[in-house]
Amino acid sequence: MNERVAYLNGEIVPESKATISIRDRGFLLGDAVFDTTRTFGHKIFRLEEHLDRLFRSLKYLRIDPGMTKDDLANLTMQVLEANLPLLGDDDDYWVTQRFTRGSGISQEDPSTFKPTVIIECLPLPLKERARLYRDGLAIVTPSIRRTPPEAMSPRAKMNNYINLVLADLEVKGQNPDAMAITLDINGNLCEGMGSNIVIVKDGAVLTPREQYVLAGISREVTMELAEKEGITVYQKDIDLFDAYTADEVFVTSTSFCVCPVSTVNGTGIGTGQVPGPITHQLQQAYSDLVGIDIVQQYLRWL
Amino acid sequence: MNERVAYLNGEIVPESKATISIRDRGFLLGDAVFDTTRTFGHKIFRLEEHLDRLFRSLKYLRIDPGMTKDDLANLTMQVLEANLPLLGDDDDYWVTQRFTRGSGISQEDPSTFKPTVIIECLPLPLKERARLYRDGLAIVTPSIRRTPPEAMSPRAKMNNYINLVLADLEVKGQNPDAMAITLDINGNLCEGMGSNIVIVKDGAVLTPREQYVLAGISREVTMELAEKEGITVYQKDIDLFDAYTADEVFVTSTSFCVCPVSTVNGTGIGTGQVPGPITHQLQQAYSDLVGIDIVQQYLRWL
Amino acid sequence: MNERVAYLNGEIVPESKATISIRDRGFLLGDAVFDTTRTFGHKIFRLEEHLDRLFRSLKYLRIDPGMTKDDLANLTMQVLEANLPLLGDDDDYWVTQRFTRGSGISQEDPSTFKPTVIIECLPLPLKERARLYRDGLAIVTPSIRRTPPEAMSPRAKMNNYINLVLADLEVKGQNPDAMAITLDINGNLCEGMGSNIVIVKDGAVLTPREQYVLAGISREVTMELAEKEGITVYQKDIDLFDAYTADEVFVTSTSFCVCPVSTVNGTGIGTGQVPGPITHQLQQAYSDLVGIDIVQQYLRWL
Amino acid sequence: MNERVAYLNGEIVPESKATISIRDRGFLLGDAVFDTTRTFGHKIFRLEEHLDRLFRSLKYLRIDPGMTKDDLANLTMQVLEANLPLLGDDDDYWVTQRFTRGSGISQEDPSTFKPTVIIECLPLPLKERARLYRDGLAIVTPSIRRTPPEAMSPRAKMNNYINLVLADLEVKGQNPDAMAITLDINGNLCEGMGSNIVIVKDGAVLTPREQYVLAGISREVTMELAEKEGITVYQKDIDLFDAYTADEVFVTSTSFCVCPVSTVNGTGIGTGQVPGPITHQLQQAYSDLVGIDIVQQYLRWL
Amino acid sequence: MNERVAYLNGEIVPESKATISIRDRGFLLGDAVFDTTRTFGHKIFRLEEHLDRLFRSLKYLRIDPGMTKDDLANLTMQVLEANLPLLGDDDDYWVTQRFTRGSGISQEDPSTFKPTVIIECLPLPLKERARLYRDGLAIVTPSIRRTPPEAMSPRAKMNNYINLVLADLEVKGQNPDAMAITLDINGNLCEGMGSNIVIVKDGAVLTPREQYVLAGISREVTMELAEKEGITVYQKDIDLFDAYTADEVFVTSTSFCVCPVSTVNGTGIGTGQVPGPITHQLQQAYSDLVGIDIVQQYLRWL
Amino acid sequence: MNERVAYLNGEIVPESKATISIRDRGFLLGDAVFDTTRTFGHKIFRLEEHLDRLFRSLKYLRIDPGMTKDDLANLTMQVLEANLPLLGDDDDYWVTQRFTRGSGISQEDPSTFKPTVIIECLPLPLKERARLYRDGLAIVTPSIRRTPPEAMSPRAKMNNYINLVLADLEVKGQNPDAMAITLDINGNLCEGMGSNIVIVKDGAVLTPREQYVLAGISREVTMELAEKEGITVYQKDIDLFDAYTADEVFVTSTSFCVCPVSTVNGTGIGTGQVPGPITHQLQQAYSDLVGIDIVQQYLRWL
Repeated sequence: MNERVAYLNGEIVPESKATISIRDRGFLLGDAVFDTTRTFGHKIFRLEEHLDRLFRSLKYLRIDPGMTKDDLANLTMQVLEANLPLLGDDDDYWVTQRFTRGSGISQEDPSTFKPTVIIECLPLPLKERARLYRDGLAIVTPSIRRTPPEAMSPRAKMNNYINLVLADLEVKGQNPDAMAITLDINGNLCEGMGSNIVIVKDGAVLTPREQYVLAGISREVTMELAEKEGITVYQKDIDLFDAYTADEVFVTSTSFCVCPVSTVNGTGIGTGQVPGPITHQLQQAYSDLVGIDIVQQYLRWL
Repeated sequence: MNERVAYLNGEIVPESKATISIRDRGFLLGDAVFDTTRTFGHKIFRLEEHLDRLFRSLKYLRIDPGMTKDDLANLTMQVLEANLPLLGDDDDYWVTQRFTRGSGISQEDPSTFKPTVIIECLPLPLKERARLYRDGLAIVTPSIRRTPPEAMSPRAKMNNYINLVLADLEVKGQNPDAMAITLDINGNLCEGMGSNIVIVKDGAVLTPREQYVLAGISREVTMELAEKEGITVYQKDIDLFDAYTADEVFVTSTSFCVCPVSTVNGTGIGTGQVPGPITHQLQQAYSDLVGIDIVQQYLRWL
Repeated sequence: MNERVAYLNGEIVPESKATISIRDRGFLLGDAVFDTTRTFGHKIFRLEEHLDRLFRSLKYLRIDPGMTKDDLANLTMQVLEANLPLLGDDDDYWVTQRFTRGSGISQEDPSTFKPTVIIECLPLPLKERARLYRDGLAIVTPSIRRTPPEAMSPRAKMNNYINLVLADLEVKGQNPDAMAITLDINGNLCEGMGSNIVIVKDGAVLTPREQYVLAGISREVTMELAEKEGITVYQKDIDLFDAYTADEVFVTSTSFCVCPVSTVNGTGIGTGQVPGPITHQLQQAYSDLVGIDIVQQYLRWL
Repeated sequence: MNERVAYLNGEIVPESKATISIRDRGFLLGDAVFDTTRTFGHKIFRLEEHLDRLFRSLKYLRIDPGMTKDDLANLTMQVLEANLPLLGDDDDYWVTQRFTRGSGISQEDPSTFKPTVIIECLPLPLKERARLYRDGLAIVTPSIRRTPPEAMSPRAKMNNYINLVLADLEVKGQNPDAMAITLDINGNLCEGMGSNIVIVKDGAVLTPREQYVLAGISREVTMELAEKEGITVYQKDIDLFDAYTADEVFVTSTSFCVCPVSTVNGTGIGTGQVPGPITHQLQQAYSDLVGIDIVQQYLRWL
Repeated sequence: MNERVAYLNGEIVPESKATISIRDRGFLLGDAVFDTTRTFGHKIFRLEEHLDRLFRSLKYLRIDPGMTKDDLANLTMQVLEANLPLLGDDDDYWVTQRFTRGSGISQEDPSTFKPTVIIECLPLPLKERARLYRDGLAIVTPSIRRTPPEAMSPRAKMNNYINLVLADLEVKGQNPDAMAITLDINGNLCEGMGSNIVIVKDGAVLTPREQYVLAGISREVTMELAEKEGITVYQKDIDLFDAYTADEVFVTSTSFCVCPVSTVNGTGIGTGQVPGPITHQLQQAYSDLVGIDIVQQYLRWL
Repeated sequence: MNERVAYLNGEIVPESKATISIRDRGFLLGDAVFDTTRTFGHKIFRLEEHLDRLFRSLKYLRIDPGMTKDDLANLTMQVLEANLPLLGDDDDYWVTQRFTRGSGISQEDPSTFKPTVIIECLPLPLKERARLYRDGLAIVTPSIRRTPPEAMSPRAKMNNYINLVLADLEVKGQNPDAMAITLDINGNLCEGMGSNIVIVKDGAVLTPREQYVLAGISREVTMELAEKEGITVYQKDIDLFDAYTADEVFVTSTSFCVCPVSTVNGTGIGTGQVPGPITHQLQQAYSDLVGIDIVQQYLRWL
């Protein structure tokens, strides 16, 4: 076997056979939810928290998964184990579960819909992103605003990312190496596609309030580690003034864990050291927690 | 042949073989655009305007379709003609073109993406909706607001409908027969999933400003017909006070053309006549334009 | 005597004689403030806090009550005592003080206005609401938003309830058994007519920030009891995502004290148990505090 | 007879007997609507338009008046005629109809409510306001904003005026002779208590959009007269920059008809002439229309 | 004489002697207004309209200029004439009048302030900007929003440009050749530093509403010319969707008159032709009006 | 020597020679930052904190000061020492550093700009403000809103004060003795020109969140002192309801330190005692900290 497999509606199939109908609402409307964890040293990380969050997304969209969290955990482990033999020693996987509302008999009667269920693995882009880990991210805030919670909650992880796709297109139209972090509807720092932003100021760590962002598990882990390290953590409205005058800025995401930021809108952050001391401290604590050196996992590709 | 066919990336295939990869960004992110016209008496309607709008959606999302409007019109007609033999005499088709950003080699390099192209037909749900045509729609405004243009323009038709799915779930949670029409971020009447709202007041016709809605072709046709009939047309901010005190309310959509509304949030509209006189006049003008009786096409199913 | 009495501008009169002029600004403009406490087992509850709040409302509207809090407390007790003989053993009263700006000699000279003062009692609708206590409330959020504090503070209790009347009409137009809880101007959960909403999540209790709601005395009592029970209490922005994914939801009000919620916009809350464990715990603590079983006081009517 | 009479729920009674229950929702909640026209030379003005507007207010609040417009017009004329003998030759009346939702048997069952209906007359405060007509109004914009339409429409005339009462208190707290004109939620000029603001600029007349204000009949009359006089009329968003740089500013209201404004927030308007030429022209046209000299009716009291 | 001169508080002085006190409020607070016109072929353009606008700015800031428009026009012509000998044949001047509130005896008593008055000339940067005229401007919308009118009207031209300076810094931090056009507080296209944006769509010309921008004289001239050429002109809310799908985009400013835009946020506009046909037509009409070829005046420097 | 001196771009000059070019961007655009501390008993106060804040302002505006904080501290002390001989025993100085972006060779190339640097002293207006210290300030909230952070952060101290100048003009147009405290874009209490507002309620001290105001050093000192005195301090959204129902209100600023407020929009605060007990306690603590009696320094002038 040299092809990855995926779970699709009750079967394990080669990934190339894992396709969905053009009538699936997950495709037509983005009417679907998902969650993604990753492995560290081939071991899955915080699966339970991810499934809790996935079930909250399902509840928000009123999709009945038709299975329990335990069922889903077991299926996830099956898919992962089937795919591990294809993974290089230094590589790791993203592991994703996804439920669409399905494609029922009639558009008029939602009770006939049956969800489409997918579980799959994808190798992390460690090589492609290694340079960012070394040099720091260039963050740019686009002019469009993050969709406000009164229209759609960012806390449910759903197949509706155009708002963040537009943010990326706007930013990369000026600087293909930059990463978009949106502002929320009030002009406060918000989030990027799959990434949370964190600011270090006067020895404390600040990140946007959970109501406006998808509260990433990596963000949560980082906040827990910061508190264990004796660093005060605030969830509050932070804005461009905070970013420009911060001592350090970093981004958390499932793949990046903790990745330093070197500039925000072209303004160098703090003293210019990448990573700054607290970012470095949190990267080490993260590495200790997950059992591999998260920085070296990227930097070895340079 | 007793299965409809679809165009998929250069080939005409049976619809059941028209599936897309679980790695397609159109699925993962809803990163795709589409447009849908319909046939009247098996003849396609205003294909050119629909393709113009589709190409504006492509431009907004910076997806290169890789073909001209003429190419796409020709392909569309091929797909339609292949499917017409399967259509009942009294039935008609929705006809849809869809472009996703595709699933490139790498998530990191957008230049490698190649769009997925789909063209397909689907019979209109005339029978399921016939009752609504006779009795009038029950419109309910949900508490969530339509995504504001500063986050994502409603004028591009994209695979990102969660905001309107949530609106529908909220409304149907109280009244399964009701139809959701959202309010915009300022509390003005906005739009439903694939439908525009129009209000008749003192002999004039009012509909929300184009900036806040997907300006449907049916809405545009109706406004043209109204002007031809000597009815003044306004695009302006209208709100619940306007709706509750309107003389008539109706909805336009590709499938409905012009469908009367009997209640808004449970308040009866005008004198209670369904359809009201101007709604009726516009239905007749619409029928004249498209060459079939749009009202009877629904009502014959009752 | 078989008619309740009321205090009106210095006199105790039968309630049917307690009428006000059609020139009174409290009637014409809603230019009046009030506060309502209740009895438990025929004993008045937290009169002092209610009068403190009433005097803040008076200050906000710049109405000079012409008497001290002590005067008003004494008059209140007189009215209550005069009416207690008419109250069934298992019943209790709402007890209300109200001040209008009066109807002065001239609309042009406010210094000539003299307030109208009313104190009265009304039996609680225990029977009518008993079913809600057993089954849980069906909460629905209407599309109109709560009046924002920059237009009129919800913290002053005034004779201006149209915003909440409209909310109720909109909600009951779909479901006559539902109760409206508005969203605030930013789309966060706010309040209903005379009721506050509380959410239970991961063992903590959350309720909207005081700036956006009339901070009910029952809400305050419940928060105090929660803290005494070792439950963490947060006042913060909470939204529909929080509600749909909550473990429990309940409402506090002067009449209800603590009443469980079974659904929000048709979505079942938590496991479906009514009341949930923490709601139940707080009902018991409330009963202990006020000296009667608040749940049985309702349920005995079924 | 030397007391005015009023209509109250089917009877004509002396005004001092026209009182309402302290249980009436029109009093408790301001749950009532009304409309007010006036006489000119003892003849009622535009009763039909006022009743149309009143019935829109009733529809908005879902109060069933229990009678037709014709019924109400007849009753109004009866009340007016009964009161005319008490009116001085140079005086005129405000004439008001008012419907509350009533005080039903139970707060829980709205179908049992029966509206309270009041029709009454009140002499215009011509003497008290004469000075303003001569010197021009001093307009001040308070810091609180007009209630936004997404909370409560200003177009329904209801017994809920606290927002405008607060505006007046704030303004008169600095300058007892000033008149409050609120800004709307976006900071545009809006309206005062019973008054609309109009700006003259480069020979055209501008007034706020109808969605944000109670579109007064006097405002409507003035706009009609302006158009007849060949003056262009715009309904649009206007703000403090427009007011400060206007050539003339005036206010319309049922009592004032057209009253000049001399200052806005202490800034003198235009050349300082009171009234300005276009204001004067419109006052004359108004006088011609109503058959009395509206300016002299005020100025004779000085 | 080989140094330009300026008018400063009653005297004509060499520009190097034209300095202001560090106590001047125009410096400390930006408490000053100005206006700038230009010469075409050494002849001043529309001085009267510029002075009208300047006097509106003075009125808005309540600065008494201490002189009439005629006085100021005469002084302006004196300064211009004194400086014309220093101007190359192919060059032209910006000509600016500026009034600060001055630096009075005391910060506590504004009546003691006496305005500082400056009139000066500066050669246009024709050479530096010639490339932009040929290639078209690269417009980028920054993430910060234009100051909303409810905080400070953009229609008064004042020494307070930090909002637009920040916009420029943000944009040039990514692309030093780009020009910032802000979005307004609602996310609509607004203005840049001294420049207005115009969009061509389906043969009509659209530009943001005057309330949100400094309505430039060049913008006004261009709109007048468009109407003379039979092109429909709209002032309305326009947004990024409009810009991305426009046929042509251009910018108007005192120096540029009409300068084509090639990209907005990196998206090519229309067919890519610079200038587009309507932009070209308006440049020609502008040249005819002002008596010199405005395009060649720039392009000759390449 | 009987004239104060100032530092200007490398030189110490008499203040009357300290002038800046009319081409300086600090003048033309207000493109400059500054900070102001004061002396107490001729000793400079918290210079380090002020310079930290100044360097944050420089960072926000991307102006390179061209010197270190130590350099600037030394220069500041030189200027102060040179000016102290001119200061009366009972007087004290404001001490200000200011950096403009300068006036470079070309408007097109920012890299050529060289900052203008000014350091100067100004005696405090103790006599003019003494009355306010005794009687309490009359605070009025104007109708215009403070510039929102998404347009320009209030946390950078820049030469752009028109928003607050307009606020003052609006307020003083009604009451020349009143002081303007703006509301923020959401209608919460914000700040005045160089002053912060603080509210005392139920023994705690509340002040607006730092994101919306320039967090004054005096505000910070007062909060530190309050905490040392065992008074709880909250930074939170506070509004007019809070102000009207507060027990005490006071203002902090560099000159005032802690100055009592007697009325807000004409409503008397608390019991009317000026200063209230907690305001008095904080004035004493402030006096102890700075080594002079801050109250007597003002009151001795009466």
